[in-house]
Amino acid sequence: MRATLAMPDSERDEHAIIARYFAPLATHEGARGLLDDAALLTATGPLVITTDAIVEGVHFLPADPLDLVARKALRVNLSDLAAKGAAPLGYLLTLFWPAGRVSGDIALLAQGLAVDQRVFDIALLGGDTVSTPGPLSLSVTMIGSAGRRTPARAGATQGDDVYVTGTIGDSGLGLEALRGAPFDAADRPFLAARYHLPEPRVSLAAWIAEYASAAMDVSDGLIADAAKLAAASHVSMEIDLGALPLSPAAARWAAAQPDLGAAKTRLASFGDDYEILFTAKPGAVHASAVPVTRIGRISGGGGIVLTEGGQPVAAPVQNGYVHRLGR
Amino acid sequence: MRATLAMPDSERDEHAIIARYFAPLATHEGARGLLDDAALLTATGPLVITTDAIVEGVHFLPADPLDLVARKALRVNLSDLAAKGAAPLGYLLTLFWPAGRVSGDIALLAQGLAVDQRVFDIALLGGDTVSTPGPLSLSVTMIGSAGRRTPARAGATQGDDVYVTGTIGDSGLGLEALRGAPFDAADRPFLAARYHLPEPRVSLAAWIAEYASAAMDVSDGLIADAAKLAAASHVSMEIDLGALPLSPAAARWAAAQPDLGAAKTRLASFGDDYEILFTAKPGAVHASAVPVTRIGRISGGGGIVLTEGGQPVAAPVQNGYVHRLGR
Repeated sequence: MRATLAMPDSERDEHAIIARYFAPLATHEGARGLLDDAALLTATGPLVITTDAIVEGVHFLPADPLDLVARKALRVNLSDLAAKGAAPLGYLLTLFWPAGRVSGDIALLAQGLAVDQRVFDIALLGGDTVSTPGPLSLSVTMIGSAGRRTPARAGATQGDDVYVTGTIGDSGLGLEALRGAPFDAADRPFLAARYHLPEPRVSLAAWIAEYASAAMDVSDGLIADAAKLAAASHVSMEIDLGALPLSPAAARWAAAQPDLGAAKTRLASFGDDYEILFTAKPGAVHASAVPVTRIGRISGGGGIVLTEGGQPVAAPVQNGYVHRLGR
Repeated sequence: MRATLAMPDSERDEHAIIARYFAPLATHEGARGLLDDAALLTATGPLVITTDAIVEGVHFLPADPLDLVARKALRVNLSDLAAKGAAPLGYLLTLFWPAGRVSGDIALLAQGLAVDQRVFDIALLGGDTVSTPGPLSLSVTMIGSAGRRTPARAGATQGDDVYVTGTIGDSGLGLEALRGAPFDAADRPFLAARYHLPEPRVSLAAWIAEYASAAMDVSDGLIADAAKLAAASHVSMEIDLGALPLSPAAARWAAAQPDLGAAKTRLASFGDDYEILFTAKPGAVHASAVPVTRIGRISGGGGIVLTEGGQPVAAPVQNGYVHRLGR
């Protein structure tokens, strides 16, 4: 970490903040305790590297607890690595801290980082902390160790089956619940938790590296992301909405909607799922540590075909999910 | 690059922007043309990784041309790698784009990236582009190949000489010139250029790896950064202000000030120099590709001692340089 922090306005305070909140997170030897300008990383094989940022008011709500915000910043990146079959090693964090915000709030943010460092066995490698007149923002670069293979979006071929991990649509419903939409009181905490704290499928990384012909994480809505995978692979993907894996809460919500098909399409158009969408040769997929559901198959041509019980369903607008809260 | 861009407000435009402006920069095979979720990097040895961000109104002026802003974002990171003796390979970029700003402006920013990719033989490996209600900000993570050694801040020992590359204080004067302070018309363009476009000492990286016992780049002011190096090494550093390397423009400015000693102290307290401060055993340093000046020596104890012609000078407040423009 270096330079330019400005709350309150001195080098001394900056160093105190780094020493107090961030240095304890830099448990990797190469991070040099954040007392240097760069991290030294000795890799024993190919690395997979990804970066994703989150912005207050765009990707998270101003009222979201800072420990969960910090964990989300890590998890959206961990999700990318998992989808590429890579095991996480460590990360660099750039923290854009609003000029007027008290520095003590960093404690909660650092607590969140510490928790997920333990959960995922990763360490802070380095970073930067800068003052901004804008909103709180976190940019994370996550570095992982490549698996036996690194599945691309572009690897799907005709005849492959299409799978997705976990359940789809919970996070989008959670955001709606947090913004005041009416939900069953029993389902609300589950859905809000799915929004606040995605569950990156890190435990599946080696499994994905073994079996997936193509893979990506679902962050912009299943249908929009499926369209990207199909386009990158120059194939067509058929998705059976009848097979869409739903949590009990999402299934209850869908059943209460006037049009079940439209409700499922909506769940498959929300974002922030952070599940893994992947393809594999029929019969190739073996038991996994996380529920995995076959939702379709790859054919020739291009684009996405939605079906329900074997019948085509009108495809929704392919805009995907645009992260823009409160506007 | 993925997700969440929002100007104008659709996936389709986001992809068009990535395809048009950023994909041509992703010349590294492992970047997969920015069509995937992560980059694959096969390293043949240890890597050095650093991250630094710049924020409009804090680290650069709103009127600064976007190509120079982009190049500065790369160069502040290249400077960190050079000070660690590492050769740059590539970078990841997170672009925080103000919600109301036209996307066409990205063209100029991408042009700047393209220029410096050629200058420094680096490639875009991946990134993220997000919309923000705040100021334009760029976060860069730069990855380099470690040199024979990776000098730390902590390597200085008693008896070492202290050196700095290039000249000190030009960038700080350039910022003052850009903010309207009176300067000789002949010196103004040079000083402004030193502010807008730092010259990271990438060509010295292998040389630094060979000779430096400790090294860091000078970004927060020579005196403040020297204090950090001395503290990390648990030594004292004597700096002879009489030996401070000044450009002709800075020397003219200093000579015109009422107190030459105070003027030199001020030059050594500005920031954004992006020169390399390093220490080495006496006699160890051989000819370099860039001017290098011996400015002091390491002794026991702690802290910084400023001298001029062998006489101690009162040390200024050790606050360093706080990047905060326009406030």
